[in-house]
Amino acid sequence: PSSKVADSVQDVWSIFTPLAAETKAINLGQGFMNFNPPQFVEMAAQEALTRNDCNQYSPPKGRPRLRQALAKSYGPLFNRDLDVETEIMVSAGANEGMFSVFAAFLDEGSEVILMEPFFDQYISNITMNGGKPVFVPLRAPAKAATSNISAHEWRLDVDELESKITPKTKIIVLNTPHNPIGKVFDEDELKAIGEVAKKHNLLILSDEVYDRLYFAPAEHKRIATLPGLWERTITVGSGGKSFGTTGWRIGWLIGPANLIKYALSAQTRVVFCVNSPCQEAIAVGLEHCIEQPYFEEQIQAYTKKRDILTSVFEELSLPYTVPDGSYFVLVNTSKVSFPADYPFPPVLDTRGKDFKTCYWLAKEIGVCAIPPSEFYSPENRSLGENFARFAFCKTDEVLEQAVENLRKLK
Amino acid sequence: PSSKVADSVQDVWSIFTPLAAETKAINLGQGFMNFNPPQFVEMAAQEALTRNDCNQYSPPKGRPRLRQALAKSYGPLFNRDLDVETEIMVSAGANEGMFSVFAAFLDEGSEVILMEPFFDQYISNITMNGGKPVFVPLRAPAKAATSNISAHEWRLDVDELESKITPKTKIIVLNTPHNPIGKVFDEDELKAIGEVAKKHNLLILSDEVYDRLYFAPAEHKRIATLPGLWERTITVGSGGKSFGTTGWRIGWLIGPANLIKYALSAQTRVVFCVNSPCQEAIAVGLEHCIEQPYFEEQIQAYTKKRDILTSVFEELSLPYTVPDGSYFVLVNTSKVSFPADYPFPPVLDTRGKDFKTCYWLAKEIGVCAIPPSEFYSPENRSLGENFARFAFCKTDEVLEQAVENLRKLK
Ligand SMILES: CSCCC(=O)C(=O)O
Ligand SMILES: CSCCC(=O)C(=O)O
Repeated sequence: PSSKVADSVQDVWSIFTPLAAETKAINLGQGFMNFNPPQFVEMAAQEALTRNDCNQYSPPKGRPRLRQALAKSYGPLFNRDLDVETEIMVSAGANEGMFSVFAAFLDEGSEVILMEPFFDQYISNITMNGGKPVFVPLRAPAKAATSNISAHEWRLDVDELESKITPKTKIIVLNTPHNPIGKVFDEDELKAIGEVAKKHNLLILSDEVYDRLYFAPAEHKRIATLPGLWERTITVGSGGKSFGTTGWRIGWLIGPANLIKYALSAQTRVVFCVNSPCQEAIAVGLEHCIEQPYFEEQIQAYTKKRDILTSVFEELSLPYTVPDGSYFVLVNTSKVSFPADYPFPPVLDTRGKDFKTCYWLAKEIGVCAIPPSEFYSPENRSLGENFARFAFCKTDEVLEQAVENLRKLK
Repeated sequence: PSSKVADSVQDVWSIFTPLAAETKAINLGQGFMNFNPPQFVEMAAQEALTRNDCNQYSPPKGRPRLRQALAKSYGPLFNRDLDVETEIMVSAGANEGMFSVFAAFLDEGSEVILMEPFFDQYISNITMNGGKPVFVPLRAPAKAATSNISAHEWRLDVDELESKITPKTKIIVLNTPHNPIGKVFDEDELKAIGEVAKKHNLLILSDEVYDRLYFAPAEHKRIATLPGLWERTITVGSGGKSFGTTGWRIGWLIGPANLIKYALSAQTRVVFCVNSPCQEAIAVGLEHCIEQPYFEEQIQAYTKKRDILTSVFEELSLPYTVPDGSYFVLVNTSKVSFPADYPFPPVLDTRGKDFKTCYWLAKEIGVCAIPPSEFYSPENRSLGENFARFAFCKTDEVLEQAVENLRKLK
């Protein structure tokens, strides 16, 4: 095999998603919903399947109806008339959209700035395209070891970010709302990042897949709307995250024509085009949301879910980060102890302590979470070892059951 | 942008599919169906959409039910018990499956043997992954210029194939049934290709997306079933081609565990996973076909379609290749003449004469076909300039209308 894949270790998802299934633990690991997509989206998919043109190839850049719906839905959020032909690209999930951006803009040795911790897929999305990730930390205040903090207390040092830039740097990846921290970057932070990008003539790839999921008083701001940044920013969105359809693989890129065209050129060769009936259904979903307060209601529902889940960490006195957005809670599990002679499987031998903690939680406590040490660069893995990430994109009932199970930790 | 995409020219699909739509020509260009998928597949997709687990992430290697159905359906065709965990990978269309194979096995400068003409996507699938395509011709006999031939009269010179092999050669791409020729490789040809692969320790990537579409007396043979070739062959299949669902983007790879695992490693990073409800529906489709003669009936229907379409080329005395398989007819259009001062758009300026012929056919005759010169390497483009490729994956009525329109050429 190619050096690009030869040394790839088993990813955290393929360990913990099957583990949750086997152990019948409540799965708060990989972020997917245990409830159906909204009726208006499901019905639209049903309907699309009956129309032949929705079962055949779509244009590589996406179906016209979906691009139009995206333009209508996102235009006001970007404060501009989005051009449906050149400024929007539908991708086979946000992941493939980002892969195609890296394929389009990285040459062998190009550097990409990532903020640590990060969604682990970024690494191989970058390295498979010849790029090299360069890391800058998001840091929690010292008090986070003993008390709860707000996600926005995790801070980026923008001078430190700038110090990582070299002549090879091509892209800064921003992720807001942030996975796994739940941080929503505020306008000042975005401005500072944007200034660095302008000064060094870098692209910004802004992964905003959780853009519809933020909790008052936080508000989601888009870096592409700041002065002079539209021109150098590609924003990533997700149908799966917005409508609870993570298995449909519908994402999108929004950005200036002269950037989108290259991402499209890559995507056309990577997947050719994207699932047609589900594109049509997401189009209908977005149209619905232009008239109806679906996203607002979803935020209310998720705020409640967050509060159900976090209540147990209060009870257990496990310090956690209160997310401003996304559907994840990062919990400090350093006080959770498992027997030293617990029979862990060999696949965990080479991984951080958090892998053991999460394995043990799934097996013995009946709740599966994701160990976040591999959301850090190899040098900094230990920073993630005291944490576990819990997803709350689940029904209230399941979250209550998880709370019940976690009480066994008392 | 990266050098990998910077110089990519507009592909033939994005010129001719919109042209067909604009001109309202009968679209026999890009190979997709103008009729609905079979009821049993459509119903299965409808049903899957109502089950939440079918709307969320699937495992990167594919849903268990689909891998099981593939093992059941293909096991007898491969003369072996296929291991559902390690020998089958579901991909986001056959294209992405092939992209992931190239990503997994090519290093910078690795060479891949392609037979000319070839499906054009192969080129950038290879070059985007650092590989270099190396070409060996399929040659039609001289008489093809004036009379019809059978697709199997296009021949590969296996010594010539072997002469193209260098220490950098990694993969031979085979495509049977072949797009655009319609050739189904016979056992002797496959054996000879296999011997070369064994002698030089090469992988075979066998693109068999049209494996359910071949016409008596031709029979589809699988190179992976020949002695000693399973170990080095990855076979590519397509739900879109098998069930008329080209827009669902469900394909698969079948091969030995130690090859599939690397393709999966790549795919996990390229798309993470594949559309869930459509995977479930294709599983049901394959299960249905184990009991029911659907594929046999489909072959009968397509044989009739082929004959409807080719009848007009007889009438017009345009020599063509009678396909053994696939849903394409390659027609010699050198006798078709268009006005020298016809107002062709600038995008055609740099393309072969066949682009002009096909443009004119769409505009003036009302039938859209695909110009195949870009199914050749740049050096050999002229070999394709006298041809047009017509697809017959259309209702009999539409094919009859196309015949009617083409009669205007008399
Ligand atoms: C690759 S797993 C899907 C990503 C996600 O939603 C998560 O971080 O859980
Ligand atoms: C990339 S276009 C789809 C491929 C195909 O079916 C064709 O050759 O027409």
